Amino acid sequence: MHTENLYQQLAGHYLKAIDAGTLRSGDRMPSLRVMMERHGVSLSTALNACRQLEQSGHLEARPRSGYFVRSLRRSGLAPSTEPSQQLPDPAQYVGIHERVSAIIAQGQQRPVAVNLAGACGAPALYPSEALKQGVLRALRQRPDLFGHAGPSTPNGEPAFRAAMARQALVSRIKLSPDEIIVTHGCIEALNLALRAVTQPGDVVAVESPTFFGLLQILESLGLKALEIPCSPQTGISLEALELAAHTYRDIKALVVVPNLQNPLGSTMPDANKAALVAWCAARQIPLIEDDTYSALSDSEAPQAALKAWDQDGNVIHCASLHKILAPGMRLGWIAAGRWQARVEMLKYAQSRSTEVLGQIAVADYLDSGAFERHLRRLRASLRSQREQVAEAVAHYFPAGTRLNLPNGGLALWVEMPGQRSSEALFHAALKEGIRIAPGLMFSNSNRFNAYLRISCGMPYTRELEHALRRLAALVAALPEQQA
Amino acid sequence: MHTENLYQQLAGHYLKAIDAGTLRSGDRMPSLRVMMERHGVSLSTALNACRQLEQSGHLEARPRSGYFVRSLRRSGLAPSTEPSQQLPDPAQYVGIHERVSAIIAQGQQRPVAVNLAGACGAPALYPSEALKQGVLRALRQRPDLFGHAGPSTPNGEPAFRAAMARQALVSRIKLSPDEIIVTHGCIEALNLALRAVTQPGDVVAVESPTFFGLLQILESLGLKALEIPCSPQTGISLEALELAAHTYRDIKALVVVPNLQNPLGSTMPDANKAALVAWCAARQIPLIEDDTYSALSDSEAPQAALKAWDQDGNVIHCASLHKILAPGMRLGWIAAGRWQARVEMLKYAQSRSTEVLGQIAVADYLDSGAFERHLRRLRASLRSQREQVAEAVAHYFPAGTRLNLPNGGLALWVEMPGQRSSEALFHAALKEGIRIAPGLMFSNSNRFNAYLRISCGMPYTRELEHALRRLAALVAALPEQQA
Repeated sequence: MHTENLYQQLAGHYLKAIDAGTLRSGDRMPSLRVMMERHGVSLSTALNACRQLEQSGHLEARPRSGYFVRSLRRSGLAPSTEPSQQLPDPAQYVGIHERVSAIIAQGQQRPVAVNLAGACGAPALYPSEALKQGVLRALRQRPDLFGHAGPSTPNGEPAFRAAMARQALVSRIKLSPDEIIVTHGCIEALNLALRAVTQPGDVVAVESPTFFGLLQILESLGLKALEIPCSPQTGISLEALELAAHTYRDIKALVVVPNLQNPLGSTMPDANKAALVAWCAARQIPLIEDDTYSALSDSEAPQAALKAWDQDGNVIHCASLHKILAPGMRLGWIAAGRWQARVEMLKYAQSRSTEVLGQIAVADYLDSGAFERHLRRLRASLRSQREQVAEAVAHYFPAGTRLNLPNGGLALWVEMPGQRSSEALFHAALKEGIRIAPGLMFSNSNRFNAYLRISCGMPYTRELEHALRRLAALVAALPEQQA
Repeated sequence: MHTENLYQQLAGHYLKAIDAGTLRSGDRMPSLRVMMERHGVSLSTALNACRQLEQSGHLEARPRSGYFVRSLRRSGLAPSTEPSQQLPDPAQYVGIHERVSAIIAQGQQRPVAVNLAGACGAPALYPSEALKQGVLRALRQRPDLFGHAGPSTPNGEPAFRAAMARQALVSRIKLSPDEIIVTHGCIEALNLALRAVTQPGDVVAVESPTFFGLLQILESLGLKALEIPCSPQTGISLEALELAAHTYRDIKALVVVPNLQNPLGSTMPDANKAALVAWCAARQIPLIEDDTYSALSDSEAPQAALKAWDQDGNVIHCASLHKILAPGMRLGWIAAGRWQARVEMLKYAQSRSTEVLGQIAVADYLDSGAFERHLRRLRASLRSQREQVAEAVAHYFPAGTRLNLPNGGLALWVEMPGQRSSEALFHAALKEGIRIAPGLMFSNSNRFNAYLRISCGMPYTRELEHALRRLAALVAALPEQQA
């Protein structure tokens, strides 16, 4: 796959300047006109380079002022390590559930003062009052709603499906509401997608690291995971995927979080997205995308979904309102391309239609225009919290800690120096009432034990700052395990 | 299995007298004292015989007056045919989804004036206002409920699980709330149960006929169905099951609806329930019970669940509030016995925790005591509607039509004379705006094509009577196909 375009070369040039300290935090970037003259490139190449650096969190666009180097750089934190190995480990059955559920259970047994383990926003970040009003309106409009079995069309309530189809346009996806099947959150959508295209024992390629929910789904379905190395900047490595496909000729599906990947926070450049969709289509490997986070991006331009490049129904698009609108509702959806009929069958057999009440309540809200205002507030809060947590990590954690500041989302992926063990950190922190998500939850291997995912969903309070400081001391006290 | 107890012999004696017309509709049964003297049996034997005939719909108990022969008999309708064949057809993969979904889709495409196809009550039969108040109360108590991900315990909201554990006591099941996992309706519970104990390609024994939802689940999971003949009176034939187990030594699970089976309306006698539970335990065949309907029984004494006899966790109990409280909510639960940990894992991986709002709203309602009053009203309405529909069938349908009047539930299972085709009837009726559920939806074979399931969930109006009369004329006009 040839993906290193001119704009990516240009972005790489400026990335080096930022990493070397030639361009510092707060510095204004050369104007697009200057870049065009200096490098002999077109306006769109200069613009795309800046947008990529914005996506990867290195630049920020200030209205009417141009691009500036983002503030994290002043702390001197190095960016996360790029994967050293391109050839994936052999595909293997997933055995992560016991480990993950033990970690979750231990975390729930102790009283936790500061929970940094989740990947969700604080309750106050979500529009509870508006959702409540939506519920009341729905019950006024349909007083006997609870007396009717199922929505008026089997795959979901028409108003909600229409609202989701409009929402998908933001990610550059054109869908008819008929193509949308409402699910119990993105988790059920991913289950249905994988059940539609695999049999137990099949090999499924996934990102490495990836969120443990996906690994648990693979485990529960008896599937083998082939973990493809990912760049903390640009997401799944297409080179590694190509290599893997030479070794494993029986990849039955690929699952990717293209925007604000969990836990990395990486966002795939558009060129990579296009190349990946074409690559999968050419090999007839179903491409399952989890687009849970893209509405949480700080970029000026909304992030495109992989489905935007789908020509022949080979991309199965899964999405959810869980992280962006209502963690307390399980409202997801799936557009399954050429597996639409099979997914409809599986959904009907697995859990029937999703409840109507939430769908109507939310459709009204999305149509009221208040949703966009909520999203703007949510993004701004998360961005501020993310930057403050990152600053604290930069300030308090031991030298050599590495971290990318993602361009949106709910968490930071922190790499501890000296191969310290996040499992040991998890237990030490729990004793002090602090819960983290240790890196070994995010892979079927132990490769990420020196990492932890820290939530940025909570308001940055004195208590949170204190917890981060305490956490940093615990990290410093852990033995280094480097050879 | 020796299951023909003394009380069953006695019940059989009186059943013959009813069928022969010696005892007629409205006749008072001999008193228990007379029965004891006449047959030389104990009080409990006489009482059990009457209770079994009450369960099978032949007698009704009138407070302080004793047992009476039920009114349907006056119409001269013969009871449904007992299965002639005991050895099941070979186990085979299920291929019913296309047939069923085509029937459902055709039914939905045409404007339907009278829908007799469902197995649900009319919206007015459910306590919409009380449920709405429950929702409002829940939102007042927890204003930021939609901002919180998941219930306060992973398997469901504690108040709801406690209410369900109390509810289970009615079916003589003793469970701790911790043993209850909340699901998206009984359908998800059955999925999880089957996924916990089978692999694709396994053989699962089911009742024949059975509800198409179960057959669709088997199909979607790649399981083979072994259809065990059922008596329209007493449910699954234990003799047939024994025979089947001799031929098929690899039965991996058995799914049974012990109370008010769908579509038969049969209820297993307690002796059969006990024998079945012991038989499965001895052979280590997981017994999955679907207890969706038992609260809709007219019997004086509540029906016991199979789980009531479970000694060693071999019974997986699945239940739901869908038919009895709120068709518009997807609130079910599962108590998975020795597969509890595996089902917890599968539920978490399949769809995460079920939404909280409905659980809190309903727990409050169940705890208010209004639930029992609602159930009494619901049972009385359904009974009256069921008897009126049965009378209309008896009156209008061609001679030779057979029908059991079940002792509760939402539908009647009608056998047309002369092997008429319910598929042909479905299409003819649809043209006239009447929807029925043809018998071939209820088996992977064509064995039940001469049957149809008629809903008794709707109020008995002039329009409904007219539709049944019209349906009867269509039945009469169908060609007989008897050899």
